[in-house]
Amino acid sequence: MDDIIFGKNSVLEALESGEREINKILISKNLHSDAKLNKIKELAQRKGVVFQFVAKEKFAPYAEFNHQGVIAQIAPIEYMDLDEFLEMPHQNDSLIILDGIEDSHNLGAIIRTAVCAGVSAIIIPSRRSVQVNSVVEKTSAGAINHIPIIKVNSLTSAVEKLKNSNWWIIATDASAKDNYYDIKYNDMNFAIIMGAEHAGVSKSLLKSSDFTVKIPMLKDFNSLNVSNALAIIIFEAVRQKLTEKKFTK
Amino acid sequence: MDDIIFGKNSVLEALESGEREINKILISKNLHSDAKLNKIKELAQRKGVVFQFVAKEKFAPYAEFNHQGVIAQIAPIEYMDLDEFLEMPHQNDSLIILDGIEDSHNLGAIIRTAVCAGVSAIIIPSRRSVQVNSVVEKTSAGAINHIPIIKVNSLTSAVEKLKNSNWWIIATDASAKDNYYDIKYNDMNFAIIMGAEHAGVSKSLLKSSDFTVKIPMLKDFNSLNVSNALAIIIFEAVRQKLTEKKFTK
Repeated sequence: MDDIIFGKNSVLEALESGEREINKILISKNLHSDAKLNKIKELAQRKGVVFQFVAKEKFAPYAEFNHQGVIAQIAPIEYMDLDEFLEMPHQNDSLIILDGIEDSHNLGAIIRTAVCAGVSAIIIPSRRSVQVNSVVEKTSAGAINHIPIIKVNSLTSAVEKLKNSNWWIIATDASAKDNYYDIKYNDMNFAIIMGAEHAGVSKSLLKSSDFTVKIPMLKDFNSLNVSNALAIIIFEAVRQKLTEKKFTK
Repeated sequence: MDDIIFGKNSVLEALESGEREINKILISKNLHSDAKLNKIKELAQRKGVVFQFVAKEKFAPYAEFNHQGVIAQIAPIEYMDLDEFLEMPHQNDSLIILDGIEDSHNLGAIIRTAVCAGVSAIIIPSRRSVQVNSVVEKTSAGAINHIPIIKVNSLTSAVEKLKNSNWWIIATDASAKDNYYDIKYNDMNFAIIMGAEHAGVSKSLLKSSDFTVKIPMLKDFNSLNVSNALAIIIFEAVRQKLTEKKFTK
């Protein structure tokens, strides 16, 4: 099913950015013209996006959203297949595996950080996890269009596949002995598993990981937001990559 | 004015954690008893918290919140005075200065990360900034009770005061020459200035900073969430502190 963008501002933004393919814009027949609506129609026409005037009853299913009589149907996120990803060449690449992240803001922030850190893809499970919804897209600040999302039925099988394809698996666990900066991230393909906000990484995944690492805390308050925890680890890998480069040049 | 916590679950949580002082609990007279409500009354009685049955009209001002007929009035956050903070002894301490952060989720996540990294205090301006509201408290996962928040009328004056008290000022700026990991964070008291989500650190503050640093990106998508950016920088300082300790022991 199509994703939907609600309201004049959001539809206008989507038209202007051109980041997501818009299938159709629906405008309520009862709507009075104003500057924003005119701009929407003008941009849609210029960009070849279909718009249609419909009875206000068409908006009834979206009563809970602030649609202002204007919605855009956009093409849904296309997920990548893990096998397809593994068939591509990889050298010193990184992956992020999200084990049951539930909060849309967190997923959005993780996607942004992953793109900035040059991560190759993000793997999420098809169940017990937040999916890529409109809050995620908004919080990702457009980053969702710059990184493939791989959806898998079983994270355990995905991890086995990765290991068989020469990827190293790093899981985060508050009781780990090693600190995240003890790992040498260069010279390998690695996947970092981040656990759910409360439960952490599931035991079966911890067991099949090659490394487990923790983030040492300076105060006994062991509760980093999951996107912040990921940012700390993945940018340590970036730091190692950039500083090692400097020395070997 | 008091801060207010809405709904049975949140009030129960507040009673159980005991992290914030509860002034009074108000319960709607029309409310039917259930297990949660009984637990609230029982806990309140045991902990000596006043609760009062009031007409449902008392809840009219809170119609937009999901209060379920139960609210708790809690003592407001007590802000610390900058002068008071500077009079305390400081050695290799860190501070975070937030220049116009507008998003409650971001402030909450920043507070959590700051506590985990052992930061001494967070400075926010009294205007053009999100204040410590209930979303901030919730997103901070209780961390708000473990770090002083300093509210100042002018960040520029605050920075001058800090500099005169032997603090070093580090501002983040995407166009800086130095990377955040080029700084040696040990052996000094430092304050990191993080800018607003869109505008960044204001020019006058950049000018009065001792260092400006950037976070190098591996992909040309220069848009980290502000709490993630802070996490990356402050935990580099933690890493330096912990690894240097290891070597000198």
